[in-house]
Amino acid sequence: MEPRVKRIYENIQKQNEKLPDVIAIANATEPMLDLTFFYATRLQVGRYEGSIAFLFPDGKLSVATSLLEAESASKGDFELHVFKTGEEFIQIVESQLKGAMRIGINADELTFKSYNFIKAHCASGAEIVDVSKAIKATRLVKDESEIETMRKACHIASEVADNIISKAHIGMKEYEIAAELSYMMMSRGAAGPSFETIAAFGKNSAEPHYSAGDVKLEKGHFVLLDFGALYRRYCSDITRTYFCGQASKKQREMYEIVLEAQRLALETIRVGESASKPHLVAAEYIDSTEYKGLFTHGLGHGLGLAVHDGGGLNPRAADTIMQEGMVFTVEPGVYVPGFGGVRIEDDIVVRKNGPELLTTARKELVEF
Amino acid sequence: MEPRVKRIYENIQKQNEKLPDVIAIANATEPMLDLTFFYATRLQVGRYEGSIAFLFPDGKLSVATSLLEAESASKGDFELHVFKTGEEFIQIVESQLKGAMRIGINADELTFKSYNFIKAHCASGAEIVDVSKAIKATRLVKDESEIETMRKACHIASEVADNIISKAHIGMKEYEIAAELSYMMMSRGAAGPSFETIAAFGKNSAEPHYSAGDVKLEKGHFVLLDFGALYRRYCSDITRTYFCGQASKKQREMYEIVLEAQRLALETIRVGESASKPHLVAAEYIDSTEYKGLFTHGLGHGLGLAVHDGGGLNPRAADTIMQEGMVFTVEPGVYVPGFGGVRIEDDIVVRKNGPELLTTARKELVEF
Repeated sequence: MEPRVKRIYENIQKQNEKLPDVIAIANATEPMLDLTFFYATRLQVGRYEGSIAFLFPDGKLSVATSLLEAESASKGDFELHVFKTGEEFIQIVESQLKGAMRIGINADELTFKSYNFIKAHCASGAEIVDVSKAIKATRLVKDESEIETMRKACHIASEVADNIISKAHIGMKEYEIAAELSYMMMSRGAAGPSFETIAAFGKNSAEPHYSAGDVKLEKGHFVLLDFGALYRRYCSDITRTYFCGQASKKQREMYEIVLEAQRLALETIRVGESASKPHLVAAEYIDSTEYKGLFTHGLGHGLGLAVHDGGGLNPRAADTIMQEGMVFTVEPGVYVPGFGGVRIEDDIVVRKNGPELLTTARKELVEF
Repeated sequence: MEPRVKRIYENIQKQNEKLPDVIAIANATEPMLDLTFFYATRLQVGRYEGSIAFLFPDGKLSVATSLLEAESASKGDFELHVFKTGEEFIQIVESQLKGAMRIGINADELTFKSYNFIKAHCASGAEIVDVSKAIKATRLVKDESEIETMRKACHIASEVADNIISKAHIGMKEYEIAAELSYMMMSRGAAGPSFETIAAFGKNSAEPHYSAGDVKLEKGHFVLLDFGALYRRYCSDITRTYFCGQASKKQREMYEIVLEAQRLALETIRVGESASKPHLVAAEYIDSTEYKGLFTHGLGHGLGLAVHDGGGLNPRAADTIMQEGMVFTVEPGVYVPGFGGVRIEDDIVVRKNGPELLTTARKELVEF
């Protein structure tokens, strides 16, 4: 019995949907993998391309995978079916779907090709229903074993944030500091960065979705670094903004406003509060300063197996009530086009009386 | 007019399929992005989540994207439609699909959710047809601008392969050398590794799909490193096997057999030859030695925007005829369970009279 499977079915029930007889979670070729496969199976190693997990209402879990992954799959706590040929794969799938007249799928992470495959191999007359909403709701609330893994992913990112400046020097290019960040995360055990690092110097920091180019570091530059570690398939995501040389009055002011906005937002995070509240509080504060209108994105997003793991802390999330175990980024920013931007981002777990910070890197203004 | 769009339609025609009126290539949330979006638009920067490219039979290309990507999208050579709201997005999609009674989609890289979205916003009675086969065939044959980008991705990986041993030392852990590989690739301009690096010491090298653990380097170890650079969205993929200390007689023998298998396979690669031939030649040679049956995977795979970019050099590819511009990995290996493995992998372009090697790292046996 896999409690995560049970929770998915409980969430379907909560949404007043009729329960499916089985949920089929199918991986295509990388990167078209359904992260729910790894959520349900708890497998942390291996790609499992072309594999399918079958989730049953009683919490039973079975997996069809090829010989290639048989060894690592055998360590999992589920019924394992290994196939050698396409015909064997079809036999397994048909036996797992046998008699199921209502089959759940995850439309968000299932390719249309895999959908057609499932459809071709289920009982005739079976109905295929999208249970992605329940899956999203389930994955949004992390269990303690997930939080423990994310704590480690966040610890790696925090340590790197606290040490990266020792590697920075005038004339260094943005992509070179991105290389240092990856190196420092991976030498601490990360499988890699959890997303493409943003390393923005000077006015590039005013573009929230910049990546890393070849601008050279100069005195007076903002140094905005947004990065995260991938650790046992879970993501961390942190941003710090540093200053090369002494921060100007305006740079310091921007930094302090963003830091205060984050502090105010964090104060509103607790079980039972609406997920739009932290954003509104941060935005209201920023809009009360001369940087009005320059906080141009949502305050945060769900974090987990994916960097954008469903849900978010933004004005559109008024209907989401924060629950114990939800993990979000909290990342206010202020962006002055042509001048530069400041963003400060931490990862938190929603707890009863307030947020538990998973990232712990220091936040005093750093000039170097 | 985008020649890549034209080529997709030409391939549909070659497959004797009726031409669609438009092909809709839709990105969901990362990592569920259709790399064909980046192929058709030639966009190299940005994530383009929730964006759609519309490909028309006359080679016309239009793109619907959000404000977030508007600036980088404006550098592209296509008709650009920027939306601010979900309603605006729907309006654009409906106008692009207007009158189209046959709509092509890429079932391999389209989520079922996006499929449903397209279906909901096309003309009533319109037929949705899967053109993934033609898209795969098109992307399999690279144009010279793609090859130029891949040459750079391969150059980065080759330089790193030629220099990594200077960073290796007794007692170093597998994941530490993986960190060095990423660092060296990224400081040469790679956006990151193109896939999770395999760094296998000692007997771990006998597992073709190992990643990187915490085994410490010892004298006598095989050091198998399989890695690649992601450069402007294109992948390289190289493997070299080194020896810590003096290679034993058996290690040296394995190395020479694999190298010879690769040499023989490369000799068979040319326009017009069957894509199964190189594998068969390599396998036949290995099976004529005492390592019979220990080359346990396909010889190679297509390489491009994806690490497994469709197609491959393997026994099942007898029907694929190699064409000018196809890019494949060529990676024979020999794996002795409990002892260790050797793999040597290069990336090549199929040319008229033989393969053009994109990776150029040295292949003499290296002991350190």
